[in-house]
Amino acid sequence: MDTLLVARAHGGTQHAVSHRSRATGTDMTFSVFVPPQANDGTPCPVVWYLSGLTCTHANVTEKGEYRRACAELGLIFVAPDTSPRGPGVPDDEAYDFGQGAGFYVDATEAPFSTHYRMYSYIVDELPDAVASAFPVDLARQSITGHSMGGHGALTIALRNPDRFRSVSAFAPIVAPSQVSWGEKALGGYLGKDRATWRRHDAVALIEDGARLPELLVDQGAADSFLKKELRPELLQAACAAAGIPLTLRMQQGYDHSYYFVSTFMEDHLRWHAERLLA
Amino acid sequence: MDTLLVARAHGGTQHAVSHRSRATGTDMTFSVFVPPQANDGTPCPVVWYLSGLTCTHANVTEKGEYRRACAELGLIFVAPDTSPRGPGVPDDEAYDFGQGAGFYVDATEAPFSTHYRMYSYIVDELPDAVASAFPVDLARQSITGHSMGGHGALTIALRNPDRFRSVSAFAPIVAPSQVSWGEKALGGYLGKDRATWRRHDAVALIEDGARLPELLVDQGAADSFLKKELRPELLQAACAAAGIPLTLRMQQGYDHSYYFVSTFMEDHLRWHAERLLA
Repeated sequence: MDTLLVARAHGGTQHAVSHRSRATGTDMTFSVFVPPQANDGTPCPVVWYLSGLTCTHANVTEKGEYRRACAELGLIFVAPDTSPRGPGVPDDEAYDFGQGAGFYVDATEAPFSTHYRMYSYIVDELPDAVASAFPVDLARQSITGHSMGGHGALTIALRNPDRFRSVSAFAPIVAPSQVSWGEKALGGYLGKDRATWRRHDAVALIEDGARLPELLVDQGAADSFLKKELRPELLQAACAAAGIPLTLRMQQGYDHSYYFVSTFMEDHLRWHAERLLA
Repeated sequence: MDTLLVARAHGGTQHAVSHRSRATGTDMTFSVFVPPQANDGTPCPVVWYLSGLTCTHANVTEKGEYRRACAELGLIFVAPDTSPRGPGVPDDEAYDFGQGAGFYVDATEAPFSTHYRMYSYIVDELPDAVASAFPVDLARQSITGHSMGGHGALTIALRNPDRFRSVSAFAPIVAPSQVSWGEKALGGYLGKDRATWRRHDAVALIEDGARLPELLVDQGAADSFLKKELRPELLQAACAAAGIPLTLRMQQGYDHSYYFVSTFMEDHLRWHAERLLA
């Protein structure tokens, strides 16, 4: 594991590291904030944050404003990259497919199936990699994410219901099978058979019987992607039909940017902490 | 004034604008956070934040973590650029001279004297420009900055003692005449006569009789520039000799980055708010 960053912040330490991934067959980068409660090695609960289109680990690390609350609450905050990267990794000119747009699936279509294995990376490999180097208590995990990363958080939590004590999302893509970002990505990575897409679509997973005990979602009401790509009303309907308590907060005036995410980050971290520290 | 950014954040609004500067003869960019207390146009006190080498307005705007505290305290936060920029503006290959490194002086040496007039821009032009578009109460101003911008905040406050209710700095260059960053910049912009440098050197200004009622400085003890470029002990000695109450906090383990600045930003904003809102 190569150290890219070690910096004291808010009494804890912000790290960024690179490691060789078995899942993707590439080097992968992630950041880890270790709060002061873990400075002596005491294991702390972990919040996984999955990022959106075009992002690396760096966007939330620099703009997410999570460290103050994590330092107060004693939370480790991990932010992985959004895709495999590198000269040997297939890419696309568009911002919403290829590098920076892994969509948290294991691709089955060539040429993406070799490296684009972000579901396996996040679910099977990253927790052990983080635990090998940082004092995380894997018995206490929560997950959140933004936009494509909100999609990742919801679908990963729905498919691994015993792993996470709490789940939230910022402006998530809730039904990729029904919107153009998702149709392009799921079609490109998984192929034309839409039946295979349902395991990577939060609304479809809920329709097919997956459950969460509760869910917190913040969504900017002035988000330019709201009506075409995000469509929280589809999640609202699926949760209502399934009896999943959803707290969906439409935030007046807020857009899709990190100015929105950073504003509500503390609320989400407190919500997770209430459940992780209970 | 051209709008580059308008985004709701922490109940207020983060702006970035570009305007034509008389002082520099170029377009200049700055950011302004307007807290919710000013959403109805009520004038609010203003904190000027001057940035360090290589920075634009964007660094602190994205990484400074000031919005939450400004929204709570009712402070407008303004972050200008660190130099004139553009194809017609003389530059230097080094990171510590030319574009991104204006050092908050009015250059007298060719070819810099035409555009590098950051002292006049910050002191004489920017307050009116900001007041023409945002609800700032110019009777209540404070100033702070980081590194080269800490130098700017200290020297501008020492030369304009009636303007600012409070002054602070993060890891400031306190005695540019005595360190290599400063010798290069002041020599390049002001020429070889070191007597002219003293009006842009906080320690020299204090030695020459300039005064502040009090001063707050945070300095990372693990800052790699501490011993060679920053030298807070020189400020400490000058303040002691002049009877200026200096709160100098050496922060163990902290470096020179925005992980350091963002950690102590809230402390500085509370310190300024106590004086601005008294």
